[in-house]
Amino acid sequence: MNEFGVKYRIGIFGSSHGPCVGAKVEGCPAGAKISEAVIQAELDRRTPGRSPVSTPRKESDKLEIISGIHGGRATGGPIVGLVKNRDVDSSAYEAFLRVPRPGHADYPASVKYGGKHDHRGGGQFSGRMTAGLVIGGAVARQVLATKHVVLLAQTVQIGNIVTTKEVPFQDAEKVVRANSVGCADRVTAERMIEAIVKAHEEKDSLGGIVRCTILGLPVGVGEPFFGSIESVMSAMMFSIPGVKGVEFGSGFGAASMKGSAHNDQYSVSKGKIVTKTNNAGGVLGGLSTGMPIEFRVAFKPTSSIARKQRSVDIVDRKPVELEVKGRHDPCIVPRAVPVVENSAAAVILDLMLQGGFL
Amino acid sequence: MNEFGVKYRIGIFGSSHGPCVGAKVEGCPAGAKISEAVIQAELDRRTPGRSPVSTPRKESDKLEIISGIHGGRATGGPIVGLVKNRDVDSSAYEAFLRVPRPGHADYPASVKYGGKHDHRGGGQFSGRMTAGLVIGGAVARQVLATKHVVLLAQTVQIGNIVTTKEVPFQDAEKVVRANSVGCADRVTAERMIEAIVKAHEEKDSLGGIVRCTILGLPVGVGEPFFGSIESVMSAMMFSIPGVKGVEFGSGFGAASMKGSAHNDQYSVSKGKIVTKTNNAGGVLGGLSTGMPIEFRVAFKPTSSIARKQRSVDIVDRKPVELEVKGRHDPCIVPRAVPVVENSAAAVILDLMLQGGFL
Amino acid sequence: MNEFGVKYRIGIFGSSHGPCVGAKVEGCPAGAKISEAVIQAELDRRTPGRSPVSTPRKESDKLEIISGIHGGRATGGPIVGLVKNRDVDSSAYEAFLRVPRPGHADYPASVKYGGKHDHRGGGQFSGRMTAGLVIGGAVARQVLATKHVVLLAQTVQIGNIVTTKEVPFQDAEKVVRANSVGCADRVTAERMIEAIVKAHEEKDSLGGIVRCTILGLPVGVGEPFFGSIESVMSAMMFSIPGVKGVEFGSGFGAASMKGSAHNDQYSVSKGKIVTKTNNAGGVLGGLSTGMPIEFRVAFKPTSSIARKQRSVDIVDRKPVELEVKGRHDPCIVPRAVPVVENSAAAVILDLMLQGGFL
Amino acid sequence: MNEFGVKYRIGIFGSSHGPCVGAKVEGCPAGAKISEAVIQAELDRRTPGRSPVSTPRKESDKLEIISGIHGGRATGGPIVGLVKNRDVDSSAYEAFLRVPRPGHADYPASVKYGGKHDHRGGGQFSGRMTAGLVIGGAVARQVLATKHVVLLAQTVQIGNIVTTKEVPFQDAEKVVRANSVGCADRVTAERMIEAIVKAHEEKDSLGGIVRCTILGLPVGVGEPFFGSIESVMSAMMFSIPGVKGVEFGSGFGAASMKGSAHNDQYSVSKGKIVTKTNNAGGVLGGLSTGMPIEFRVAFKPTSSIARKQRSVDIVDRKPVELEVKGRHDPCIVPRAVPVVENSAAAVILDLMLQGGFL
Repeated sequence: MNEFGVKYRIGIFGSSHGPCVGAKVEGCPAGAKISEAVIQAELDRRTPGRSPVSTPRKESDKLEIISGIHGGRATGGPIVGLVKNRDVDSSAYEAFLRVPRPGHADYPASVKYGGKHDHRGGGQFSGRMTAGLVIGGAVARQVLATKHVVLLAQTVQIGNIVTTKEVPFQDAEKVVRANSVGCADRVTAERMIEAIVKAHEEKDSLGGIVRCTILGLPVGVGEPFFGSIESVMSAMMFSIPGVKGVEFGSGFGAASMKGSAHNDQYSVSKGKIVTKTNNAGGVLGGLSTGMPIEFRVAFKPTSSIARKQRSVDIVDRKPVELEVKGRHDPCIVPRAVPVVENSAAAVILDLMLQGGFL
Repeated sequence: MNEFGVKYRIGIFGSSHGPCVGAKVEGCPAGAKISEAVIQAELDRRTPGRSPVSTPRKESDKLEIISGIHGGRATGGPIVGLVKNRDVDSSAYEAFLRVPRPGHADYPASVKYGGKHDHRGGGQFSGRMTAGLVIGGAVARQVLATKHVVLLAQTVQIGNIVTTKEVPFQDAEKVVRANSVGCADRVTAERMIEAIVKAHEEKDSLGGIVRCTILGLPVGVGEPFFGSIESVMSAMMFSIPGVKGVEFGSGFGAASMKGSAHNDQYSVSKGKIVTKTNNAGGVLGGLSTGMPIEFRVAFKPTSSIARKQRSVDIVDRKPVELEVKGRHDPCIVPRAVPVVENSAAAVILDLMLQGGFL
Repeated sequence: MNEFGVKYRIGIFGSSHGPCVGAKVEGCPAGAKISEAVIQAELDRRTPGRSPVSTPRKESDKLEIISGIHGGRATGGPIVGLVKNRDVDSSAYEAFLRVPRPGHADYPASVKYGGKHDHRGGGQFSGRMTAGLVIGGAVARQVLATKHVVLLAQTVQIGNIVTTKEVPFQDAEKVVRANSVGCADRVTAERMIEAIVKAHEEKDSLGGIVRCTILGLPVGVGEPFFGSIESVMSAMMFSIPGVKGVEFGSGFGAASMKGSAHNDQYSVSKGKIVTKTNNAGGVLGGLSTGMPIEFRVAFKPTSSIARKQRSVDIVDRKPVELEVKGRHDPCIVPRAVPVVENSAAAVILDLMLQGGFL
Repeated sequence: MNEFGVKYRIGIFGSSHGPCVGAKVEGCPAGAKISEAVIQAELDRRTPGRSPVSTPRKESDKLEIISGIHGGRATGGPIVGLVKNRDVDSSAYEAFLRVPRPGHADYPASVKYGGKHDHRGGGQFSGRMTAGLVIGGAVARQVLATKHVVLLAQTVQIGNIVTTKEVPFQDAEKVVRANSVGCADRVTAERMIEAIVKAHEEKDSLGGIVRCTILGLPVGVGEPFFGSIESVMSAMMFSIPGVKGVEFGSGFGAASMKGSAHNDQYSVSKGKIVTKTNNAGGVLGGLSTGMPIEFRVAFKPTSSIARKQRSVDIVDRKPVELEVKGRHDPCIVPRAVPVVENSAAAVILDLMLQGGFL
């Protein structure tokens, strides 16, 4: 169903062309300071204006909290936050039930629901649903901050443009929020923007990779056996539309490493137990090691492209040419950055609550 | 906790040096034909004898079913299956609570449980716990088979040895089960075996990649939003000890593809709606498209290596040299093949039951 | 947490003096016809105007659906419905954190949350939260109706006034909805109204019993072992504020019956297997038998009474006299009737979905 | 499904004529001292020898722990305990699929599963399944004892024989465990035994009421809204075969009380906030008040009686006379006492773990 989590649970609702999208959040500790401005700021990072090829007009998603926060603090009851949808023309979407767009959920959803679901704007399969993840995650990050747990997602690849530059956490945070692709490396960010503009001109789209780092986690967060940090985090990440891969630490690179190189050997630094390498990505046996949590999320290129594509009429079973109209982000990655970061916060808070860490 | 699934739930129990390891399975439809021999056969694929460098002696895990199957059929009640552990010397493990093995769960588990957990043999963090996954999955695959849904996991990389050969499903199935690395490409299998033997001689270990293919799934399996095939499958896969990455279809490669190349365009073949490419890996919007489900799972090299490694005494906070004794698989990938395949079956059956497909 | 159900899940939110109260409903089948007018009608039965001693002004709870229904049909996504709260004076409630009202949640809630929860108007412990149950249940009853499953709750006792009259289902339904105490027996209803008016004059309050009947359920609804109709239904009923007891069929009377009298013996009537007696209340082994489901729910007298009561200052640990001001229902039972009926519908729909009955 | 609980979860398995019955328990804190002898003692209270009309032979249910306890302490992993079934003749049960026993699950189970379930001995609907509840509860009570939370169930009614005598907790505990009906009032116990013997002679059976008291609970245990003590406890109680009613504190009696009499007014005694009356049964707003938790559970008379009864052949739809052979308890209440007590312990531990009380 549309709910995620055990002790800290996010239930998303709404649809892209219905009245609103939002989230109901269970498990926020009573009394926790929750700033609506912080949630709004995270939502703003996700809005279309973020994209380098968007129109300058900033279309805001205005947050409304209708339950669970009173006087700037969590009441202990469910928090419900939502953003209203603007009036939009849904007429085009009816056709996609019969002639599905390549790369979209149209075809399997049409078969699954027999056309009975709310298909307008992609309905529940729309990327717009991630606004609910951002709301739930932006609440969580504020609780985590009181425990000095901080998160940073950043774009490390768009199309063929890759950065491997390691920018210190606080600097990276500023740069990521300042440029329109969410990349901590200013120079590469410019090249990523150019690549997106070019793809847009070519009526094409680009994918990319978002890396997420979590600092400050105590040792031992995570639950056996199916509640490992990797299991829960990957389940959340693969819920984000367009994600094709998730890897922790050395990730797929581990396949060609030897154990003697991969094992992160322990040492003591300033009385703290640390490892010099972090191939584990901060997780062993599903539990946090005290080293930074590191994972990477691969996004496919946007499915909606302005070129003509081949599809089929699923009733007639005949081939059809399809042209998807409207303005679409030629690369979803920049807007995915705050989604990865905030939804990761929800996962970590849930595991910390489960483990009795707060 | 140690349970996975919604309508088809596997709860694993036991520990590597306790009396047994096993699984309790909920949700197997009453009346389903379940052969214990099939479960035993899958368990046999996971035993140490599988490894190219194992001793010739086949140490069998003998299945005992103590609930839920009567007269060769599921009763509708919980199925409980277990394999007893052999008597083993657990004395070495006490030390790892204080001087943790690099790459193992020792350190975070020791902090989390304060030494109160069953640490012997890795306890609940041991790879031996996956026997429960195999039991639960081998029940599921028999139910799936009645719906013509079949699964095949195969080793496609060990260390630097990679195969890209596409072997037809049924041939692949035979070859995978016949060689000791679970690779469908006979020639590459030999090279993988050599690589493992060499790593063993060098007191080192290797990682690798397992690919899993699922055929016969109807269109529309998977649940929105957090119940996408990718979310649930990745959560299961990352529960398997040693997994560092999971990707579907084009996976991380999608990041550098263009939308025009990535979109799988629809066509009609023999009245069936198909796509020529399968970058989606058989999943769009979290739902099955009717094309084969394809995903890849990256495993790190075995953490237990015979070389001396640096660790620390976590009480004294002093550096210590550590030598991990005993016989260990220099590559876990071959034994992981049936774990991936069977646990994937459990995921798919759960989603089919949730979706009302059986 | 604030969620109930497995396949049909109601999550209630809001608080009595916050912006709204409402419910998020998961699992309503896509395409089901859902009339907002029906939901509104059930909400109207719960409003204060229902009480015989209420002011004539009908304070309506105006339903807003913000997710999950489009064009009069369920979209398959979460349904979110809410009713806004009117502006109310919450100032009195602060004091109850320190000097708790007898019979209310004030004292244990104050200790549990350390005063950090939203205590205004009883917050999440308020009877007003049951509006969410009515919303979720009024959706469910519409789905059940398509399967010819119908429900009727009726008041059978208020204070010492008891009715044992058996009124045929459809007549009872009309009468229950027509009088202000929800009693199917017109004559007794009048006496109940008098008793409530008298209790009100005496600055006192009354309890009572609501009986609920469910017709049309197929045989075999209910899940083993903890998913019995009685288990799930009682869990729902005991969530309604003020409930002290739940019994099925013969209920507590069964304790003094003999087996030969209690066993409902089978016979055949018009080709249908029936029992003449229904001591089972329509449930055996947790499963529906095809006979009417019958259960009774006991409510305590309203805790808020206008008399002076003894309490304590929980900080000073000194005795204090307390007078609870404001207008309160001297008997909650009439307004509880639609809550019992609709929340029961949610339970039954959930079990039918779990059992694959629709 | 066959699982109960959130943080402390019991999953029962097996069937009465299969290899065993047992329970898998999740959530027992690592390091908790768990005596197998205590579990065995609780199981012994449930065995047939308990009944006043049983044969003197004590048929023991011998506990086997196969997971989760090592060296007398919980490992933190799942605890699995079971008792093997003795060889029994299951041949009689086949007939009940076609000619159901009145008062048993035969008829609805036969329809639900189409005869595909394990019907022998009542299968999963058998009272024998409660051995699993006792195992799970007997673990929980040991954890609770370390927090000074203690429980006592006692028989207060069998047939028409009722006791209202209040026996101090510790005395009651001894007497309850010493006599064969589990009644704390020695004199009434004798009359209850006589009544059972007489019912047995008359080939009939008796019902009764079990009262349960829980002392030592801190204030604030219980979760809003659906996690109230009453909701969770009643759900557990109604899972026990034969239960027809559950009431807390004043229970059904509350229906005819006035608020001024029902409200438990607060006072201070030795610095502790208490109430003189306990109509609340120790629960307000679903949360513990610090007063004793009090609830009562009504059991129907045993369905299996030696008299001829009317049934039907469900295939032919013809009336049939049925005689249920074999030895059956003429009153299940005495053996239900330890089931109520131990399963209540599991509920309380779960809520305490959820609330962070340990």
